[in-house]
Amino acid sequence: MGSTERRAREREDVRRRILDAARELFVAEGYEAVTMRKVAERIEYTPPAIYFHFKDKLELVQALVQEDFATLAGHFARLDEVADPWERLARMGRDYVKFATQNPNHYRLMFMTKLPPEVEKMDDPERGIPAKDAYAMVRHLSAEAMAAGCLKPEYQDPDLVAQVLWSGMHGIASLTITMCDSHWIDMRPTPVLTDAMIDALLAGMGTPATIARNLLDKTKTPKRKPKPRS
Amino acid sequence: MGSTERRAREREDVRRRILDAARELFVAEGYEAVTMRKVAERIEYTPPAIYFHFKDKLELVQALVQEDFATLAGHFARLDEVADPWERLARMGRDYVKFATQNPNHYRLMFMTKLPPEVEKMDDPERGIPAKDAYAMVRHLSAEAMAAGCLKPEYQDPDLVAQVLWSGMHGIASLTITMCDSHWIDMRPTPVLTDAMIDALLAGMGTPATIARNLLDKTKTPKRKPKPRS
Repeated sequence: MGSTERRAREREDVRRRILDAARELFVAEGYEAVTMRKVAERIEYTPPAIYFHFKDKLELVQALVQEDFATLAGHFARLDEVADPWERLARMGRDYVKFATQNPNHYRLMFMTKLPPEVEKMDDPERGIPAKDAYAMVRHLSAEAMAAGCLKPEYQDPDLVAQVLWSGMHGIASLTITMCDSHWIDMRPTPVLTDAMIDALLAGMGTPATIARNLLDKTKTPKRKPKPRS
Repeated sequence: MGSTERRAREREDVRRRILDAARELFVAEGYEAVTMRKVAERIEYTPPAIYFHFKDKLELVQALVQEDFATLAGHFARLDEVADPWERLARMGRDYVKFATQNPNHYRLMFMTKLPPEVEKMDDPERGIPAKDAYAMVRHLSAEAMAAGCLKPEYQDPDLVAQVLWSGMHGIASLTITMCDSHWIDMRPTPVLTDAMIDALLAGMGTPATIARNLLDKTKTPKRKPKPRS
């Protein structure tokens, strides 16, 4: 490895450590209370070393959010292999909760922390708003499921459907993260809760044909590309 | 008003200001980062004035949590007027979300902030664990609805039912609080989302008779004490 490559890798390592330290601090102390100096102290660097990578706290948190949403998007990568529109939504929900419980600090920063409005003002065409892209995806899958006739006819608003599904998954993810150390509650295992929520919402919002098809699919392995019935 | 009464009232006022300032600080900066000195500074008192009311930070946060759960319990006060077991659960869900959106800082402290485990070690018979009491209530109502035959026979675990319902309501409450300033998402009004979630879960988990009865009830006013049909 040449010295240019090595330097690039070292730079990347430092950037990585800054981002990880900043995430922990933002989650533990809130955005306002964190300073660039605190981030530097956390990883035993001088403040100028941090400023070499990020011009200010806003740029730092924007990079972090951008990166964490990219990680989430990676978890959704194989959704297009699932042929059934409802099953695709269900899979997205399960992937989402799995991401949250595997990366609780990422999740807390992305969905459980109040960030300043400037963080979301990243709507240049190069980058977009990462959270908006993630929401656009669940909205798109909801609209597809509606167009395919999976949902009862009273469901005509893809935003409402997407927000109900998102709330259900977010509720499980965030309660799991917040309650994991509570000794007084016997929380059911997260995957059990997730499946129960998805099944209840499907049975509540789906047409009888969709419900029957998805129940049938459960008895088969593998689940991918089930032959559509209608 | 005598001077003893006045002093008692003044003491109560100070206590109130300490609690409100502490709640804001815990929510904004996290439990760890807050000191008794910071709370004192916030309301322009000296630290000894705070220690006169609370012996340490733990006692302060315990009093706060105790009080905020009592406020939540007050929101549930009229549930026993509702005769239908499912409608009682639905009412509890709506009251819960309303409490959260009307008292976002209370809600963030109670359900969205990681507090040290000692806060929950309040299990002396005098006080109990406030969060446990609130959970016991939704679990009890879930068990009642199951015993009354409101839910499909596959639902045999009151904890699972209670946790699915809680997750649904918590998801809406916490997303509403976190996303309320986000300009990029067109969130549906919270009561619309809440009703959509409750309706979907009822239709998914309820027996046909329960669903029919609750649909019928929606067309009637007042909703209280509907005549049970089965």
